[in-house]
Amino acid sequence: MKLSEITEWIDRELEVGKFDDVSNNSLQISRRGDAVSRIAFGVDASADFIARAAASGAELCVVHHGISWGGGIKRLTGGVYEVVKAAMDANVALYAAHLPLDASEKCGNNWELARHLGLKDISKAFSYHGNVIGVTGIASKDGVCRIGETEIPLAVGEKVGVCSGGAGEFAEAAKELGCSLFVTGEASWGDVIAAENAGMRMIQAGHYETETFGVKALQRAIAGELGAETVFIPRIQK
Amino acid sequence: MKLSEITEWIDRELEVGKFDDVSNNSLQISRRGDAVSRIAFGVDASADFIARAAASGAELCVVHHGISWGGGIKRLTGGVYEVVKAAMDANVALYAAHLPLDASEKCGNNWELARHLGLKDISKAFSYHGNVIGVTGIASKDGVCRIGETEIPLAVGEKVGVCSGGAGEFAEAAKELGCSLFVTGEASWGDVIAAENAGMRMIQAGHYETETFGVKALQRAIAGELGAETVFIPRIQK
Amino acid sequence: MKLSEITEWIDRELEVGKFDDVSNNSLQISRRGDAVSRIAFGVDASADFIARAAASGAELCVVHHGISWGGGIKRLTGGVYEVVKAAMDANVALYAAHLPLDASEKCGNNWELARHLGLKDISKAFSYHGNVIGVTGIASKDGVCRIGETEIPLAVGEKVGVCSGGAGEFAEAAKELGCSLFVTGEASWGDVIAAENAGMRMIQAGHYETETFGVKALQRAIAGELGAETVFIPRIQK
Amino acid sequence: MKLSEITEWIDRELEVGKFDDVSNNSLQISRRGDAVSRIAFGVDASADFIARAAASGAELCVVHHGISWGGGIKRLTGGVYEVVKAAMDANVALYAAHLPLDASEKCGNNWELARHLGLKDISKAFSYHGNVIGVTGIASKDGVCRIGETEIPLAVGEKVGVCSGGAGEFAEAAKELGCSLFVTGEASWGDVIAAENAGMRMIQAGHYETETFGVKALQRAIAGELGAETVFIPRIQK
Amino acid sequence: MKLSEITEWIDRELEVGKFDDVSNNSLQISRRGDAVSRIAFGVDASADFIARAAASGAELCVVHHGISWGGGIKRLTGGVYEVVKAAMDANVALYAAHLPLDASEKCGNNWELARHLGLKDISKAFSYHGNVIGVTGIASKDGVCRIGETEIPLAVGEKVGVCSGGAGEFAEAAKELGCSLFVTGEASWGDVIAAENAGMRMIQAGHYETETFGVKALQRAIAGELGAETVFIPRIQK
Amino acid sequence: MKLSEITEWIDRELEVGKFDDVSNNSLQISRRGDAVSRIAFGVDASADFIARAAASGAELCVVHHGISWGGGIKRLTGGVYEVVKAAMDANVALYAAHLPLDASEKCGNNWELARHLGLKDISKAFSYHGNVIGVTGIASKDGVCRIGETEIPLAVGEKVGVCSGGAGEFAEAAKELGCSLFVTGEASWGDVIAAENAGMRMIQAGHYETETFGVKALQRAIAGELGAETVFIPRIQK
Repeated sequence: MKLSEITEWIDRELEVGKFDDVSNNSLQISRRGDAVSRIAFGVDASADFIARAAASGAELCVVHHGISWGGGIKRLTGGVYEVVKAAMDANVALYAAHLPLDASEKCGNNWELARHLGLKDISKAFSYHGNVIGVTGIASKDGVCRIGETEIPLAVGEKVGVCSGGAGEFAEAAKELGCSLFVTGEASWGDVIAAENAGMRMIQAGHYETETFGVKALQRAIAGELGAETVFIPRIQK
Repeated sequence: MKLSEITEWIDRELEVGKFDDVSNNSLQISRRGDAVSRIAFGVDASADFIARAAASGAELCVVHHGISWGGGIKRLTGGVYEVVKAAMDANVALYAAHLPLDASEKCGNNWELARHLGLKDISKAFSYHGNVIGVTGIASKDGVCRIGETEIPLAVGEKVGVCSGGAGEFAEAAKELGCSLFVTGEASWGDVIAAENAGMRMIQAGHYETETFGVKALQRAIAGELGAETVFIPRIQK
Repeated sequence: MKLSEITEWIDRELEVGKFDDVSNNSLQISRRGDAVSRIAFGVDASADFIARAAASGAELCVVHHGISWGGGIKRLTGGVYEVVKAAMDANVALYAAHLPLDASEKCGNNWELARHLGLKDISKAFSYHGNVIGVTGIASKDGVCRIGETEIPLAVGEKVGVCSGGAGEFAEAAKELGCSLFVTGEASWGDVIAAENAGMRMIQAGHYETETFGVKALQRAIAGELGAETVFIPRIQK
Repeated sequence: MKLSEITEWIDRELEVGKFDDVSNNSLQISRRGDAVSRIAFGVDASADFIARAAASGAELCVVHHGISWGGGIKRLTGGVYEVVKAAMDANVALYAAHLPLDASEKCGNNWELARHLGLKDISKAFSYHGNVIGVTGIASKDGVCRIGETEIPLAVGEKVGVCSGGAGEFAEAAKELGCSLFVTGEASWGDVIAAENAGMRMIQAGHYETETFGVKALQRAIAGELGAETVFIPRIQK
Repeated sequence: MKLSEITEWIDRELEVGKFDDVSNNSLQISRRGDAVSRIAFGVDASADFIARAAASGAELCVVHHGISWGGGIKRLTGGVYEVVKAAMDANVALYAAHLPLDASEKCGNNWELARHLGLKDISKAFSYHGNVIGVTGIASKDGVCRIGETEIPLAVGEKVGVCSGGAGEFAEAAKELGCSLFVTGEASWGDVIAAENAGMRMIQAGHYETETFGVKALQRAIAGELGAETVFIPRIQK
Repeated sequence: MKLSEITEWIDRELEVGKFDDVSNNSLQISRRGDAVSRIAFGVDASADFIARAAASGAELCVVHHGISWGGGIKRLTGGVYEVVKAAMDANVALYAAHLPLDASEKCGNNWELARHLGLKDISKAFSYHGNVIGVTGIASKDGVCRIGETEIPLAVGEKVGVCSGGAGEFAEAAKELGCSLFVTGEASWGDVIAAENAGMRMIQAGHYETETFGVKALQRAIAGELGAETVFIPRIQK
């Protein structure tokens, strides 16, 4: 399969062009040769991740957090040098989808998390730079649900806000929408205090843990629809 | 003592006017009447903190994290309403010092942390919007030092970077300065990955825990030099 | 009636969300308790206005000029402290509508002024930051009309531009639209000179005087459609 | 005398290069021929002013309010066409000094106003975009002083803030500096309300009236030091 | 014919209002009297061009490059004084259309160039600040085509990108669109190197030479549809 | 020699930190291993240049035009991929100095050019984003001097402005400084017209040709003071 066909397919599927994102989404590192037979998926681009992806036979890595943000890469030195060097040496391309992979109804982190939590009446919520990326939903039964190691106690009928990654800033917006619980990945201290001041309950289930949902769903979609060989490369904790 | 004399004294002591800070430092909430007999200190402005400060007899609260940031307060609703309402009802003034209380050599979080860790040859490092707020220093002995519950293992002679609060973005700068360890309060996931990519060891000792050092040092300075009655109001975990 | 129902009704009625305004429109100060039985209307938020509104039994003040502009309130000190203190002490909420209350065809200052002046063929004109807020119209008879103490001489058939408040900057645009008269509230000296250079006749009828029209029309609409108790609190000249 | 010598002399005298001004100060319109024998002074550039200046024999007009502001002149149409056409047809150059002519200790509007009001202990105050342009001073005797038609009652020993033109925004700053009176040219309605909220007495003595002081002082300085023929062209009220 | 009718006709024809252009398009210099009997066309506004236009009897000049860009004209001195002085002395108005005259399908530089080169399947390409101004097309035969003195060798079936003026920055975009040749007016050195790095063939056919096409096509349209007397004033090389 | 020692030496020598430059100066691409035995110099970073530099045995390339500008590199694709790939494959580092290498009195393009042209009384001129990068000087004899293929006729005593690269925008500033000739590398069409309107003679001597002077002077300085092996790699015209 051609690299350009795959990247164009993901661009369309996730509506990448519609997002005003601090991540420079889509293809971030090219490669020599356009043929791709195997695609590796992960949350974060790192030299270690790329080396393991290449070792698995992948020519393309698809991640949630790439290496080009904002204005771009000022210097190919330090950590970013390591990532680019790993990709160039292994001749592996890198594709990143950040907010589009939070927001997608079909395979975004937040719809996937909401389905995982058993929410119903899911609808879009929480606007980041004009992009509505999270969701709210209604808990469909009492009980405790897990995201990674974190326990999420749910009461049937309560309204729950969900926004993956570092999204503590939306806790108060969740309260205004009538939620009694807001689930995110991680929250800065300022957002923890703001949520407390507003009287909003917030659970931090892990930045990484809340963001494996999207890449895995995208992996399934690509395997199913493009018939590509795929592999998920989990993070190795150091 | 007059409120204006106290705020002017802190402004001078911390050189508040020299910082380009996203916090609108100095007096953030006024009060009726200029006489202050007792000053409460804490890390974060919250309705609970202010109520306990007022209950202790304080007319002025001095904090690291106030309620006015960036352009200011758009609406006195939600959580910020609760804080302002608590202050107005109790007739308590609020003073905030953010970056100036990170950076001060005499009573800033980072010099205090460095002294707490037994570092020597302390010097300024880590520039945030043109404000140099952190420090580096050389570990003076082998062993484990604690910040709150967090253990910091140190090897004599190693260079250590220190920046309180949410300062993970400086991990790579610490490496460039020759540090083998970077101590901060909390780090976003992106900064954790960036530090890993750069091969930099980083310890997160708690945003709150790393920032009690500065307000307590300022409290001691005010008690000593202005002869004011003071009290530190610790956070009650919810 | 619930505070949130009233504010949402005004937001919809005036299409508040469509305006790019330097005023932070909609609810600016909350209150304890959601029940509102009486609403006070005025042009400008001041401690005196709020105290008189509260004395009249109002739980909510609706004004054209609130207290939160641009980035927001940097410090609750000085004059803004007085206004917020008055609202907090009296437990009165504050709602502001600036450009939306200039522009509304149903109850905005400028359509009301145009009807007051007897203009016909009224149409929108004068764009401020992308918001078309004023009107032009054709005088329907000869004679002098008054706005407050100011006499406005009109000749049947002449085209008149109208923009309430401080809108002298539109005088030359009025000329380009074929107006022979431009009526505003107040004009800065620079705008007076620019109008003279362009050969445009401009009448300043008072910032306050031209902006009582909108709040009074909104008061009538709320009284009529929401059935709320209302009162207009005029300014007391000092 | 050469035009370039005169403009360089004023640039130096008023330290024009030090000001971050919305007016594009210094020479705004050139002329054919560098010889200048007579200089006309006025507050505002208008076609009428320029025509009268040319009729008096002037080759150069020096004003407080020129025709080029901010990014510059977008179109030579309407009112600005009239002014430029008048200058080009009469071959008259135009020089503008805005903030520099408010601030100059030797011949700025505000020091001149302060001397006119009999203030002593005059010192700089009121910063506009980093430029300190106004003054404060202490009234030296009881009584009423006039600026144009406006009466300014003064009590010996009271501190007075002075800022010419449209400077009502500084009323609250004057209060913080301990002034009991703030004198300006004109104030927008928002500034009037803000001053009232802050409990600050403000007198509006006229934008034009407060700004004849600077150009006249500059005229005297040029007549005295450069030996040039000069004339002041007063505004004719329309 | 009235000046305002002509300018409004061109505004509509070229959809001037739709472009976000650094040129302040439409009428840039007005004139005394609204009657226009003859219109001169040229690429660049210069004192020499305006003088020759006036000598030919024109009351209006229409150009691709006017004199007002960005924020506008800061000072009527130096070169811009010469141009304005020439226009004012000869009482000639000036109209400029920059990007709208690059982009117009009917009479823009790039569609005209594409037709001149014999391209088929012409479609819009190359977005500058949100304005799509250039084209791509397919060469319809083998051979060499000329633009001014520059030879453009074409191979039947190859895809060619065309963007008049200084548009070398689009060379790499042309490659991404599948072009094997990019034709522009002039390219900065940085763009030449960037095109080489990307392996893209680029021909610079002259800024002036590529931009006579649009004004001449507009001239024909105005002559044909408005029935105005027109003249093209070519540049005289100095 | 260590890479970091060389880059720090150039940073100091050219005062790189003092420039507000659109080029992200200093080290742009790192390499594996810190030892550098040979340094290649050139004007422009290209895959071809880097390959030839590596073939000559260089571990470090020093250029005037690097690959990271403004916010940085958004995507490692297309032309920039080729350059980075060449550097990574050959394990060659890249150092860029843009404005600092225009401005340096010791080895900058413009002082070198001025000395080449035989100018005397050389002094700094022409400010770009606050950086004074060019020079003026007085021709010391009559005659023709060459820069590359371009002839520069000079008359003894005339004042000449010099600014390498694409600096046509300074032509009018040169006139205001009393120059009768302005020498630059290349000028955009708009700057050519502006210079003509202002009556200023400008010679374009080639962007590349005017910018070999600085890198060659830096090469001599490094060879002399650091004792490094160096080579200049000229551009091969394609």
